Amino acid sequence: MSREVIYTENAPRSPVYSQAIKAAGLVFVAGQGPFHPVTGEICGETIQEQTRQCLSNVSSILSAAGSSMSKVVSATFILAEESDFAGMNEEWSNWFPVTTPARQGANHSEGNEGFNRSNRRSLTR
Amino acid sequence: MSREVIYTENAPRSPVYSQAIKAAGLVFVAGQGPFHPVTGEICGETIQEQTRQCLSNVSSILSAAGSSMSKVVSATFILAEESDFAGMNEEWSNWFPVTTPARQGANHSEGNEGFNRSNRRSLTR
Amino acid sequence: MSREVIYTENAPRSPVYSQAIKAAGLVFVAGQGPFHPVTGEICGETIQEQTRQCLSNVSSILSAAGSSMSKVVSATFILAEESDFAGMNEEWSNWFPVTTPARQGANHSEGNEGFNRSNRRSLTR
Repeated sequence: MSREVIYTENAPRSPVYSQAIKAAGLVFVAGQGPFHPVTGEICGETIQEQTRQCLSNVSSILSAAGSSMSKVVSATFILAEESDFAGMNEEWSNWFPVTTPARQGANHSEGNEGFNRSNRRSLTR
Repeated sequence: MSREVIYTENAPRSPVYSQAIKAAGLVFVAGQGPFHPVTGEICGETIQEQTRQCLSNVSSILSAAGSSMSKVVSATFILAEESDFAGMNEEWSNWFPVTTPARQGANHSEGNEGFNRSNRRSLTR
Repeated sequence: MSREVIYTENAPRSPVYSQAIKAAGLVFVAGQGPFHPVTGEICGETIQEQTRQCLSNVSSILSAAGSSMSKVVSATFILAEESDFAGMNEEWSNWFPVTTPARQGANHSEGNEGFNRSNRRSLTR
């Protein structure tokens, strides 16, 4: 079956992973941090702002794949601080006003230091 | 393609995520904690009891989706305490007597405090 | 729909999970640690060596499923030490010379102690 690599300038990119791969009727989106697509800098200081940047990146990648946030079926969040849970949910809800995806979550840090982690992986169709 | 939201009163529910979404021939189930479907309270004190409640919730959601535990293809566990690994496996095996799903695991906490985390995500078909 | 259990002697096995399940046009591979398929011992001391063993196990499982590393669509890594991130990426790139899969990552430990965790889950088609 086909396996389509997705690329957009409107989301962060990396030599070690693809932004998304389309396969089997799904779009597998790479985990997104709160990074600016061009500068690579962390966007925002509050968990709400950082969540917004994460999901904005996911949204841009989905658009490039011909999908959208309204079609997300499952998403994973990773938080650096458990105390950010309520703030993340507050912003999360703004991105899924009609039906929310299934969700899995975790609380821990990874890779880059110094920001409220709100890494996410999305599966859409 | 179709994207079906699954809902059952027999598992915990939340405004910020769906219990499951059915799409692309799969059921994407939200991570389940050891919570009682009605009271929302943590069920059990041992990792075996809490694992049972997590998987009971997953099972209820799968039933509502027209699937079942015997069709799970992949599942993720999250443990708050590494020392609970053996106890979790003990109960886990009871739920998958014939063929076990592929599994991924992690050890860390999230969101709620005070219980042995045994969050799980399941993919079934 | 069909649900095929994958088994190979060329990767670690466990009574509590399947090495992989094939379903819905995808192969769901269990998380792999840096374990030798036969002895079960940790292979290597550096993150590069341990990453190699993890991905070698994934590769063996994919082969048994009639797939291959060149078809991986999404993968999750789990690191015990954030400082191993660069070293893991170094080895990671060797396994995906053409197109890299979408990727999600985390930094924490699980189950077994004493090795640089580089657990991975892969979805291929």
